[in-house]
Amino acid sequence: MLEKLKEEVLEANLALPKHGLVTFTWGNVSGIDRELGRVVIKPSGVAYEELQLDDLVVLDLEGNIVEGKLKPSSDTATHLVLYKSFPDIGGIVHTHSPWATAWAQAGRELPALGTTHADYFNGAVPCTRALTDTEIAGEYEKETGQVIVETFQDRNPNETPSILIHQHAPFNWGKNPSQAVMHAVVLEECAKMAYHTLHLSPSTQSMDTALLHKHFYRKHGSGAYYGQN
Amino acid sequence: MLEKLKEEVLEANLALPKHGLVTFTWGNVSGIDRELGRVVIKPSGVAYEELQLDDLVVLDLEGNIVEGKLKPSSDTATHLVLYKSFPDIGGIVHTHSPWATAWAQAGRELPALGTTHADYFNGAVPCTRALTDTEIAGEYEKETGQVIVETFQDRNPNETPSILIHQHAPFNWGKNPSQAVMHAVVLEECAKMAYHTLHLSPSTQSMDTALLHKHFYRKHGSGAYYGQN
Amino acid sequence: MLEKLKEEVLEANLALPKHGLVTFTWGNVSGIDRELGRVVIKPSGVAYEELQLDDLVVLDLEGNIVEGKLKPSSDTATHLVLYKSFPDIGGIVHTHSPWATAWAQAGRELPALGTTHADYFNGAVPCTRALTDTEIAGEYEKETGQVIVETFQDRNPNETPSILIHQHAPFNWGKNPSQAVMHAVVLEECAKMAYHTLHLSPSTQSMDTALLHKHFYRKHGSGAYYGQN
Amino acid sequence: MLEKLKEEVLEANLALPKHGLVTFTWGNVSGIDRELGRVVIKPSGVAYEELQLDDLVVLDLEGNIVEGKLKPSSDTATHLVLYKSFPDIGGIVHTHSPWATAWAQAGRELPALGTTHADYFNGAVPCTRALTDTEIAGEYEKETGQVIVETFQDRNPNETPSILIHQHAPFNWGKNPSQAVMHAVVLEECAKMAYHTLHLSPSTQSMDTALLHKHFYRKHGSGAYYGQN
Repeated sequence: MLEKLKEEVLEANLALPKHGLVTFTWGNVSGIDRELGRVVIKPSGVAYEELQLDDLVVLDLEGNIVEGKLKPSSDTATHLVLYKSFPDIGGIVHTHSPWATAWAQAGRELPALGTTHADYFNGAVPCTRALTDTEIAGEYEKETGQVIVETFQDRNPNETPSILIHQHAPFNWGKNPSQAVMHAVVLEECAKMAYHTLHLSPSTQSMDTALLHKHFYRKHGSGAYYGQN
Repeated sequence: MLEKLKEEVLEANLALPKHGLVTFTWGNVSGIDRELGRVVIKPSGVAYEELQLDDLVVLDLEGNIVEGKLKPSSDTATHLVLYKSFPDIGGIVHTHSPWATAWAQAGRELPALGTTHADYFNGAVPCTRALTDTEIAGEYEKETGQVIVETFQDRNPNETPSILIHQHAPFNWGKNPSQAVMHAVVLEECAKMAYHTLHLSPSTQSMDTALLHKHFYRKHGSGAYYGQN
Repeated sequence: MLEKLKEEVLEANLALPKHGLVTFTWGNVSGIDRELGRVVIKPSGVAYEELQLDDLVVLDLEGNIVEGKLKPSSDTATHLVLYKSFPDIGGIVHTHSPWATAWAQAGRELPALGTTHADYFNGAVPCTRALTDTEIAGEYEKETGQVIVETFQDRNPNETPSILIHQHAPFNWGKNPSQAVMHAVVLEECAKMAYHTLHLSPSTQSMDTALLHKHFYRKHGSGAYYGQN
Repeated sequence: MLEKLKEEVLEANLALPKHGLVTFTWGNVSGIDRELGRVVIKPSGVAYEELQLDDLVVLDLEGNIVEGKLKPSSDTATHLVLYKSFPDIGGIVHTHSPWATAWAQAGRELPALGTTHADYFNGAVPCTRALTDTEIAGEYEKETGQVIVETFQDRNPNETPSILIHQHAPFNWGKNPSQAVMHAVVLEECAKMAYHTLHLSPSTQSMDTALLHKHFYRKHGSGAYYGQN
């Protein structure tokens, strides 16, 4: 079952090395069928070059394996929290892409510094607080999901489809697995350019709000006019 | 009609990913037939790997679509202002190439620091002022063109074929689409090297004027002696 | 003899250019058969693209050549010291990979700044002290091995499978040649990300110890749950 | 005539884009036949992907064209000065490789910071003084050669086969064109690593002299023991 979703999830996983976002197995993509309440996710520690459709794992939203002979990604619990908390998202991507990870390791949010960022993110990409030792010792992967949700308490996950996990790496999402991969690529590119921008001019402020909104809404919402219909 | 120009514009667009200047659809190339007063430009949001000759859009200089079934690039109005204001140019390239974009986001002009730069640009590559909120809320893409023209009030666009748009990215031009792409590549390379130069020696001044002119006029104008005839 | 080990060592050597870790012949891999007390190592100065199975050199642990018509790597004495001092390791990789080498040239240990590092290294990757002029003038390559062992006096080489040699470059090891290559790749990636992290936030401290241990032991030891069985 | 040298020079020119050292036509290689007093050099402004054996230009040491239908490299006069002043060299490479060029633009010599550098350069790679306006207005390319020779007044060009031209880019040489290319690659790699080293530890001093000599003479001179015989 879920053959179409599995193909989307497989293709999205294979897009990660193609876009230079992963080394070895450092990343995973999942997708959800909202009607059936089923999540398809990459198995844990399987090399991308060997990944097959049949290796993908199907789970329900409580994490019970419904189909698949392999163990799901060790980050599965994080994915499930996000699917339950962000009702509009259909795909999730986790990577350790190097520029975004540098910002996460520095514990800094990624500020909106130009129109490339504004075309996809309606403001800064936040960084979570550090997990407490208790949270780390407990259900660590689930707590990672919770701290993402906590960070989005006053933010709209549909307008900021990425986050940096403190001392860890980014998570990205989208309306489907393929769009989540696109956001992962954009995040990495914006993280690289913002790094260089701040070294050229350390006092650079976040971009003009009017310009931010102009570009974000040129591509999103009812007034969008970028691209073909 | 305009088959030859269309082929040049298609080839120039496809050269952008080949030179590593674009991610996804972040860029566009146009070319103009000055006699017919017709501009050929990339359609909006179409992936480079799928771009066909028939997808290109032909417009007059007022922006009316003369031929083509797709919407032209969302940056078309910027291109048209440049063609009307800079009478000698025949091709325009817009990208979000990462090094040049970092300078644009920092709001800094790119200084001439060495002969690589001087071989193509007769001085610094300027950065526009920020657009006002009124300009952003108005005909944004046209205003982007106007602020480029304003920045070149006392500059010769034939001797400095690139500009950085504040908090946005570069535009480049040339006598034809292919030369405009070449300038986009050179700008990116010079932006990268200038970044590293200033980190090695933050007090580096702009290069010696005699050396700047020596290299620029070795390749341009009646006394040029670089290359074959 | 040792055909299987030779194949592993050949494959591991060829993996170095594939992973972008070496320029020209700047690197070498060896493997050991603990039962026979035989080490297989790359010959000195042979280009990777020409390297053949028969070019590999077999030595005993005292450095006597047992098989092979070529001279072994000039770093052979370093490898032998490590095999004699670290009884659990089965493969060694030396490279001049550029990010790790920058840290070695700066004489700085690589701090653990995030989970990517913690997945492979249970703490900072140390940098050796400088060799004395006497050590350099003596059995230089053997002394290089000794100073590595000295640096690990109070560290577990099985939990920190890499080291930076002061003003030189990294050495990495693992349970076999292939795992040693993996550690060389991870070290390079972590060295790059830590460099950028410290430039984004110069005061970044080493990561939370609970998070370090959580990730290291998620992948190592009896409680590991990452990957398939 | 000179078919073998022409093939070496062609191959060395084609190696430049292969090693990522050139953009467009920013570079050139020459070789010399010392017995015949003939220099073979790349023609000016010809794209590497189109370069053919017959395009190469043969000159005598005074710059008279002996064979070839194209104009020689605009940097030919610089090459000729070096061949006349450095009697042991057999090949010369000029590039605008980005890391070395950043150092040249900063007007800084490249210090010896580690063994990668010491394996090829017996000390810092110097940077020339700036040319005077008179020198630039005069026989510019010849003066560029003269200032290189001036910089080597108290240095041995056989032990430091590269130089940085102030506000310009590097020149490299070797016993033949292929070795000169190798030195261009090494220079670029060392320039990159030194840049990062100095950002990690701005107070990093030049490497220990004993270690510098140990590595340089491990590969050069009568006591060399690196590589096969």
